[in-house]
Amino acid sequence: MEPARLFLGLLCASAALAASSLHQRPPQPEFLLEELELELGESPSGSLWPLPRSLRILPRQLQLAPARFQLVHGPGSTAGPGCALLQDAFRRYYEYIFGYSKWQNQGQRPLPAGTELLQLQVIIVSKDSECDNYPNITSNEAYQLSVTEPVAVLRAEKVWGALRGLETFSQLVYEDDYGTFLINESEITDYPRFAHRGILLDTSRHFLPLKSILANLVSWHFVVTSISYQLITGSYSYDHVYTPTDVRLVIDYARLRGIRVIPEFDSPGHTKSWGKGQKDLLTPCFNGEHRSGSYGPVNPILNTTYHFMTDLFKEISSVFPDAYIHLGGDEVDFTCWKSNPDVTEFMKQQGFGIDYAKLESYYIQKILDIVSSANKGYIVWQEVFDKGVKIKPDTIVEVWIGSLYTAELSRVTGAGFTTILAAPWYLDYISYGQDWKKYYSVEPLNFPGCEKQKKLVIGGEACLWGEFVDATNLTPRLWPRASAVGERLWSSENVTNIQDAYNRLVKHRCRMLRRGIAAEPLFVGYCDPEYRGR
Amino acid sequence: MEPARLFLGLLCASAALAASSLHQRPPQPEFLLEELELELGESPSGSLWPLPRSLRILPRQLQLAPARFQLVHGPGSTAGPGCALLQDAFRRYYEYIFGYSKWQNQGQRPLPAGTELLQLQVIIVSKDSECDNYPNITSNEAYQLSVTEPVAVLRAEKVWGALRGLETFSQLVYEDDYGTFLINESEITDYPRFAHRGILLDTSRHFLPLKSILANLVSWHFVVTSISYQLITGSYSYDHVYTPTDVRLVIDYARLRGIRVIPEFDSPGHTKSWGKGQKDLLTPCFNGEHRSGSYGPVNPILNTTYHFMTDLFKEISSVFPDAYIHLGGDEVDFTCWKSNPDVTEFMKQQGFGIDYAKLESYYIQKILDIVSSANKGYIVWQEVFDKGVKIKPDTIVEVWIGSLYTAELSRVTGAGFTTILAAPWYLDYISYGQDWKKYYSVEPLNFPGCEKQKKLVIGGEACLWGEFVDATNLTPRLWPRASAVGERLWSSENVTNIQDAYNRLVKHRCRMLRRGIAAEPLFVGYCDPEYRGR
Repeated sequence: MEPARLFLGLLCASAALAASSLHQRPPQPEFLLEELELELGESPSGSLWPLPRSLRILPRQLQLAPARFQLVHGPGSTAGPGCALLQDAFRRYYEYIFGYSKWQNQGQRPLPAGTELLQLQVIIVSKDSECDNYPNITSNEAYQLSVTEPVAVLRAEKVWGALRGLETFSQLVYEDDYGTFLINESEITDYPRFAHRGILLDTSRHFLPLKSILANLVSWHFVVTSISYQLITGSYSYDHVYTPTDVRLVIDYARLRGIRVIPEFDSPGHTKSWGKGQKDLLTPCFNGEHRSGSYGPVNPILNTTYHFMTDLFKEISSVFPDAYIHLGGDEVDFTCWKSNPDVTEFMKQQGFGIDYAKLESYYIQKILDIVSSANKGYIVWQEVFDKGVKIKPDTIVEVWIGSLYTAELSRVTGAGFTTILAAPWYLDYISYGQDWKKYYSVEPLNFPGCEKQKKLVIGGEACLWGEFVDATNLTPRLWPRASAVGERLWSSENVTNIQDAYNRLVKHRCRMLRRGIAAEPLFVGYCDPEYRGR
Repeated sequence: MEPARLFLGLLCASAALAASSLHQRPPQPEFLLEELELELGESPSGSLWPLPRSLRILPRQLQLAPARFQLVHGPGSTAGPGCALLQDAFRRYYEYIFGYSKWQNQGQRPLPAGTELLQLQVIIVSKDSECDNYPNITSNEAYQLSVTEPVAVLRAEKVWGALRGLETFSQLVYEDDYGTFLINESEITDYPRFAHRGILLDTSRHFLPLKSILANLVSWHFVVTSISYQLITGSYSYDHVYTPTDVRLVIDYARLRGIRVIPEFDSPGHTKSWGKGQKDLLTPCFNGEHRSGSYGPVNPILNTTYHFMTDLFKEISSVFPDAYIHLGGDEVDFTCWKSNPDVTEFMKQQGFGIDYAKLESYYIQKILDIVSSANKGYIVWQEVFDKGVKIKPDTIVEVWIGSLYTAELSRVTGAGFTTILAAPWYLDYISYGQDWKKYYSVEPLNFPGCEKQKKLVIGGEACLWGEFVDATNLTPRLWPRASAVGERLWSSENVTNIQDAYNRLVKHRCRMLRRGIAAEPLFVGYCDPEYRGR
């Protein structure tokens, strides 16, 4: 049983040439200092992250007066004050833009005529703004932003594009040494390169408090207090369970930020904690002729297993609005199945011989059918595809095994399946130095295949598995390293200048600190105002 | 210019066989789960960290009633209520023992006669308790602790031993599922294996707020706002400076915990930030016949340099009570010196030929003399010794270069110098997995040399350089990894059972969380009560 995954859109990031300095002896401090001096500088794109698809920043600066500036619905917008999602975003971005500053202490100087930006007008163009929807894989996130005196205009088909545009607008505003808020006249047209830009948070190996999840926009230990099955319990104490209220809170919090929440329930392996709540769910292992007392993967030969799974996925489907559920399917150890005489007998009856992969496929096939009948699509780890399990044509296959992942991308897309790339972005595998450059340098479509195959890659995921991560170190380990993946998945393929990325990411990281996210430093230096953290 | 270093005594830690699984592909999750199941268990020593030299825990349990139990000065102690250090420690440890619990909500049940521990009596035996002193390299940290009904007695020559004994006592107390505080009758005799057990915190590459320093017991960016020279300024903004008050606060906070604070001022290299505050201090670099505009190491040919340094170290000596100053001396790049015609001319005059190491030695020799005349001892990085600079016989040489450090230990001690080992404990060099085992497995005296040479190793340091560390990730990166070094330096040489260490360290880490230190997890699992995150 594994984490929920979040589809990150708000804080995205960018990728370039890999320095590939992994695992060699770290450079000595004096070298690093030189490196810094080479690197630190101004990007022509300021602090924007991720870089928009098309960007024109003009020299003319406009001022914003915190006491007068407003985020408003523009004329003709199909969303108005009744759109809670945008109202909430207006409030949030007003605070991001002005909130951490000390402007409140300053007198409100009158500004010379023709130099002030008075409003950001947000206009939703489409008849259906999707204000009350949940985001999904086909959500339109495109927007156009035009900053000219006296009002800036943000146009988007749907609210999802407006959210992305608000983030960009907030990143365009800066404060000078005298506390004046400024923005350059600008023209931006933007839309994501990949629709699926995910972060995987693991709440099964360490419980993550709700606060940590929300602070990182999303994530959580996926454990539902199901009445019928007492699913959950498992390896945590009574306190360490997400209640249905917690789950709804996370989903709603994510929705307001245009983020999907996809739960993962990995089976038949990775299920030890399930067994404690559910009699007979796991396979009893044998030591010769006797039960050893320990348990293996889910027991695939009992009808009760499938009854349980049917009820479980019915409940999950009702709790999680997203059209997809991640079903896992990775890393099944056959040792216990092999030891169990009932399983052996079942293998014979089914004509599986001694090929336990066939038994696994049998199990997975049944689970896929159960999920399908609950009207959900599914995402599976690459092993399910590799083992030849029959999966629906609309299944999403997630490629995670680090070695030779480009060949796997070729195979998966060659077979016509949609795919998500995670392999090069396992953020839990830490190493010394600026490993964000490695993540940034990945080009997801750089694998052998035709155009049609490339189109089947719908995005990627930065995975932060939890063996060594909990609330104490989650945030600085995730950020800003995940930001590198974010830009790679949002911005154009040709956005690969690592120097420019460094300059922007340093500022983006400081902005995260100001917004309360304890992102770790990229390298030596400081933010102004300095983060006053713990 | 580099960090202050703290000599850690309070939260110490232990070392065993290195798994040496560094930089190989991380094990897969299912394996890790098995590993956990093998590893988790009870140590016969409970949660003690570091393990005392001699320990007898008896089966008989005594209860502690929070409303009645007291930490008091015992009969005949040379320290009494006038000893602020112990009074502060009594208050602190009472809170550590009972504070985080919910006992306040429980009725105070009367306890059966003969089962209650009523007091811990602390008895300082020596005529001079050293209550008002600063700790130093020769401070006596030994103690004896006897827990029997109805009172426990903690005996120590000096307050330093009492501090260590209070920590051990607090670790012996545990809470059962019903909220009852229990302690087993025990007999402990304890003293450290090495006198120097240090943590190096780097405040030069990232400013660390005072709060972060204190939260980790000590550390800081070492920058003194000196009136005569405006030392400091440097790479930080105006806000990022420690005031003299900050410095005194840190020193006093550390003293109350038996921790020394040793400042490091690394020169002639690592000094770029100094130059900005001090004209002519750094060597101007040349590009052919003209100044390039950049600056190199400290300029060793000017009298003004040594006047500045004399004033600087006079001030430092008055601010820092410790008998030692760390002078650095590592990693000098000669390129700039070589480019400068005045330096070349000076080399000729001095008969140095083209051997710039001689010029460096000339500089260091002068600095050492300046520090000596300020009545301070000095610690230097190994290069100063390696380059044959003439150093006083009581100089402490710190061995930091990772490769072949055992040979270096042989050479340094063979030449009769006292030494500190840092090389295997560079905590900033992170890697995937349980790298604490690697730190724990180091045996500092495992190098070729006679008994007399081994005696010259006075301890070691866990170094957390700051290229990639600031307030956002300092604490979880330092703890519990530094604890492994702590036990190695405190406990007996034969305390090397990694399984036992794991079991104790898991609990010690949970205790750190309860005490407000956001130590990262060793591996999967949870603390009870769970840490509720930032």
